[in-house]
Amino acid sequence: MRHAIRNGILIKEEEATLPVTLRSVQYAYSVYEALKLKNGEFVHLKEHLERLRESARGIKIELRYQDSEIELWLNMLKDADGLMNETFRLLLVGKENIFFITHSQTRSYPDSYYSEGIDCILYEGERFLPNYKTSNLLLSYLALDEAESKGSFEALLVNRHGYVTEGTRSNFYALKGNRLYTASDEDVLLGVTRIGVMEAAKDMGVEVVYQPIYVKDIFSYDSLFISSTSMKAMPIRSIDGRPVSRSMNTMVLRFSDYVGAWE
Amino acid sequence: MRHAIRNGILIKEEEATLPVTLRSVQYAYSVYEALKLKNGEFVHLKEHLERLRESARGIKIELRYQDSEIELWLNMLKDADGLMNETFRLLLVGKENIFFITHSQTRSYPDSYYSEGIDCILYEGERFLPNYKTSNLLLSYLALDEAESKGSFEALLVNRHGYVTEGTRSNFYALKGNRLYTASDEDVLLGVTRIGVMEAAKDMGVEVVYQPIYVKDIFSYDSLFISSTSMKAMPIRSIDGRPVSRSMNTMVLRFSDYVGAWE
Repeated sequence: MRHAIRNGILIKEEEATLPVTLRSVQYAYSVYEALKLKNGEFVHLKEHLERLRESARGIKIELRYQDSEIELWLNMLKDADGLMNETFRLLLVGKENIFFITHSQTRSYPDSYYSEGIDCILYEGERFLPNYKTSNLLLSYLALDEAESKGSFEALLVNRHGYVTEGTRSNFYALKGNRLYTASDEDVLLGVTRIGVMEAAKDMGVEVVYQPIYVKDIFSYDSLFISSTSMKAMPIRSIDGRPVSRSMNTMVLRFSDYVGAWE
Repeated sequence: MRHAIRNGILIKEEEATLPVTLRSVQYAYSVYEALKLKNGEFVHLKEHLERLRESARGIKIELRYQDSEIELWLNMLKDADGLMNETFRLLLVGKENIFFITHSQTRSYPDSYYSEGIDCILYEGERFLPNYKTSNLLLSYLALDEAESKGSFEALLVNRHGYVTEGTRSNFYALKGNRLYTASDEDVLLGVTRIGVMEAAKDMGVEVVYQPIYVKDIFSYDSLFISSTSMKAMPIRSIDGRPVSRSMNTMVLRFSDYVGAWE
């Protein structure tokens, strides 16, 4: 039987529910995190908990639990269900601080996604409060739905100014020569794996340039890639059906390897 | 004991819950409606069901239930809980079409809200897909929270162009001379009570002008008011602490009376 945690209590997974009469549920007034357990260790737990607290604060919820408590609960759930490699989802609902931990199998992607790259579409839209991981995810749902209906893997969000900020569940980067371009911090989710990408750039002697990547210029870069906790760093092969790079770039593969090893 | 409806089945209200592991719940991929039962009759039921269907379609959910079925369920719930005057909430979750009906006491407001008007704040933000009543309500939550923390009743949303589109749970209007100004259809929720306001204008020989009401001009109108299913038409007394009209306007009171009688 699968379990979950609700406010520190081990429950059956099927009991991890929310009442539809609760205002915080009706308003999707909640924040979340997803983090990996790898070989029995939680990956970048500190960073994920820090961001959960930040996301909560961003929508005026004070997370009342300590990191140490949450870590205890994560381990409780891990032990109860005998897990070694898994993805955990933390959900904090409303000022009531209803707190769930659930888990699911860690997604893995075909090797070809890394060796050949993935297909993306462009989708117009801006995430509300992009720095925070809130449950206000309708834009992401619709954008991803559109991507999948076209056989693509990810939708890249284009803002009112005509530049790509991020993917629906990933950060976005462009490489040109010895430079890595990405949107500035205030426009995007501050992905935990994005920290790894920045460290990779530093180690590789690649200059990071926080500068908008305009749709009109998008095919002028050497290569493009996305990153996330589940994807690590994944090269982009095409956008809206048009190839983005003449060939797989060795630079993007180095990022991919670095970030894969970083966690 | 209070009841609810889930997919046509009468359940206890406490059983009206959603699993946090469901993707449609995690993405707040759902739409809703609120409608009133008044003296045992559902008010403007047809319009609310039409809008529910429209909202669903707007986010690519096909509502699989017929109006006649939903009406049957509403009556089932009304009878089970012996209700005569109440507010019902319909919630449709995801492509799975999980459908809930719950109910709560109809809000009533002090007479002074109508005779003296209410206080509003301005809040910068645009609802995503404003024509549809989706659960993507974080902006509304935060705006209303801000209003309430300042002792105000409603937050008026100001868009990127500097004009007020609507309130967090109301439509917004300005009166000047014999003209009623309001944002155009594509910018706002097409409130059911807004239809009543338009009918009132027609009956009163007031010309409706679909024209942005800019913040910079907002104090130049004779009077301002908001409308919603629960509020009917409610005059605005102040915005961000500044009085909006020298005196209560007889015109706005006529709108208020008309819309009150319309339902």
